Amino acid sequence: MSNPHGNGDAFIVTYHLHLEPGIDVDQFARNICLEQTVELSDDLIVEDSIRDRVVGKILSIQSRSRHIYELKIAYQWQVAGHELPQLLNVLFGNISLKHGIKWVDFEGQSPVLPGPKFGLEGLRKAVQAWNRPLVCTALKPMGSSPNVLAEMAYHLALGGLDIIKDDHGLANQPFAPFEERVRQVQAAVLKANRETGGNTLYFPNFVPQLDDFSEQLALCRQLGIRGLLVSPFLVGLDMIRALRAKGEFILMAHPALSGGYFGHPHHGIEPGLLLGKWFRLMGADASIYPNVGGRFIFDLDTCQAINRGCRESLSHILPAFPVPAGGMSLQQIPQMRRLYGDDMIILIGSGLFREDPNLLQAARKFRLAVENPL
Amino acid sequence: MSNPHGNGDAFIVTYHLHLEPGIDVDQFARNICLEQTVELSDDLIVEDSIRDRVVGKILSIQSRSRHIYELKIAYQWQVAGHELPQLLNVLFGNISLKHGIKWVDFEGQSPVLPGPKFGLEGLRKAVQAWNRPLVCTALKPMGSSPNVLAEMAYHLALGGLDIIKDDHGLANQPFAPFEERVRQVQAAVLKANRETGGNTLYFPNFVPQLDDFSEQLALCRQLGIRGLLVSPFLVGLDMIRALRAKGEFILMAHPALSGGYFGHPHHGIEPGLLLGKWFRLMGADASIYPNVGGRFIFDLDTCQAINRGCRESLSHILPAFPVPAGGMSLQQIPQMRRLYGDDMIILIGSGLFREDPNLLQAARKFRLAVENPL
Repeated sequence: MSNPHGNGDAFIVTYHLHLEPGIDVDQFARNICLEQTVELSDDLIVEDSIRDRVVGKILSIQSRSRHIYELKIAYQWQVAGHELPQLLNVLFGNISLKHGIKWVDFEGQSPVLPGPKFGLEGLRKAVQAWNRPLVCTALKPMGSSPNVLAEMAYHLALGGLDIIKDDHGLANQPFAPFEERVRQVQAAVLKANRETGGNTLYFPNFVPQLDDFSEQLALCRQLGIRGLLVSPFLVGLDMIRALRAKGEFILMAHPALSGGYFGHPHHGIEPGLLLGKWFRLMGADASIYPNVGGRFIFDLDTCQAINRGCRESLSHILPAFPVPAGGMSLQQIPQMRRLYGDDMIILIGSGLFREDPNLLQAARKFRLAVENPL
Repeated sequence: MSNPHGNGDAFIVTYHLHLEPGIDVDQFARNICLEQTVELSDDLIVEDSIRDRVVGKILSIQSRSRHIYELKIAYQWQVAGHELPQLLNVLFGNISLKHGIKWVDFEGQSPVLPGPKFGLEGLRKAVQAWNRPLVCTALKPMGSSPNVLAEMAYHLALGGLDIIKDDHGLANQPFAPFEERVRQVQAAVLKANRETGGNTLYFPNFVPQLDDFSEQLALCRQLGIRGLLVSPFLVGLDMIRALRAKGEFILMAHPALSGGYFGHPHHGIEPGLLLGKWFRLMGADASIYPNVGGRFIFDLDTCQAINRGCRESLSHILPAFPVPAGGMSLQQIPQMRRLYGDDMIILIGSGLFREDPNLLQAARKFRLAVENPL
């Protein structure tokens, strides 16, 4: 990737701008370069070297349609200091508070964006499943005791699910405190695996207050937990990077609270970028998103863009699993496979409970629905 | 506050719903109660006690205007387990990914929402300033050396500013690494205070990666830093709670990256709630927001709502300082004082640099503009 600084150490961000009539696109673009770095207008920058090295450089501005432009800006990595919180700040910090700016793409390499540790192939290996979608469900409902959840997990694992995750609302509540829940559920899943010779994995929901981060992580390590469910917008986007840096756990990202960025057609962050490429770059091995036709708002194009962001070739970055979810049923599986291909994790939560009150049977049906070639 | 659980341990969340014609508001509201807790439809909940204790209870639904309703839901605190990430999840996690839901208010008491430690009066005492707005500027531009920033801070402190904060983009970059910058700037401000007998405070921008949290905090403690600038959406909303729990530092919140939630008129989070009441409840002693008439998008009503959220009476929670900012100039001060009253911190960054290249003089003019009664 050529870059205007001539030192090979830049990242490139792409926005779609939706401008009111009469707004000068060149000035608007230049103001973004200033706003996201020096927070000064051009004439107040005293040191030329700051204008050259710190302020972003406009690489291109292309008209896409009436009032809509694609803008690419290059920044030297040093403005983000190779730290994730400040990188987010440069990419969308202050301009999130403006109108008509949608962050749609990112290109750049840094230790803070290492991509998945395990990735699509690593996760397939962990559950010993090839040439089919993986099948996953969520333990629920909130309010159930650890004992009830463990019993549920035992039957679901006997039925052959690849991954059993906590509902992302199971945190550290009194009815199922983190430690007790994770101990009991993990033991139940390991017991089922011993009985079946299967490889079901349990991913606890990891949503600690900062004070409990190390202790909860140590517990997971001690129990032989292989993967975690993480909601970056609940725990802070840097937590997924911090977990990835440890390299111990398969990371499944959940989009809770991210939806604020998707509500407006011309402002915010493109879901395909945020839930696809960006979560993958930060280190997610799998990224859950609300699939078309469920309880949420994404259309098919958006879902396909997330799939691409997870799986497309991206230099040395491993591909990740897209995880369509949010109100799916077993009946939708053939269509999902035709549309998305088999490199996905199908997450069916309440739809599985509705399928059959006998969870072992429900899980078997789910597993069978992905075993057969289309 | 009455609550439907009869145990005094509930919190209440208020949304404005904007519904498409034909949508049943009662069902829509009930679905929110389920979505944010059990993630099951009613008929799949097996245990009655979960329906009673875990699923939210609709307190009221009131029509506000055509297609717009105000909905109040009560949840027992145990669904959030008194932890901030899970509380955020219950309030706006999954429903952020829907349409037509704006989170507009919150009522409830918990150790995770303690409010400011110092508050408006504590911060006034720290800078020994009563009966006038406080005056604050930001060290910039990014790319300056610690030496340049310290020199700048020295003159600004001599000029009598109450608070000198880092620009929120000064992180840990190579041109001004956190430790070196904070050491030099703090020393410069203390030197100026010794010379003037003044009480200028320096608030470094605290935007660590998680790994550096404790070390950067220890440095601030060691240097006698009294306050920190924190961007909750960059570092994670739980970090401001974690800092508040320590009770050592005055906390000034910055809205970077929060703007995604404000872009849509009928979906997201009301800025007056998020940047006013909510940041205050989490522990911010002062909350920066983009003022009307500057470079950003808020109108006067929104700014006044943030002011109210910071300052209005709220049980045992101390009031906080609203901090209008974002492209202000000295000329706007009399109008801001008339509109907002004097219980605010006026943050003028680049406008101060434009006022007078001699920063000592510029700071003196700024201070004078708030010394005189209107």
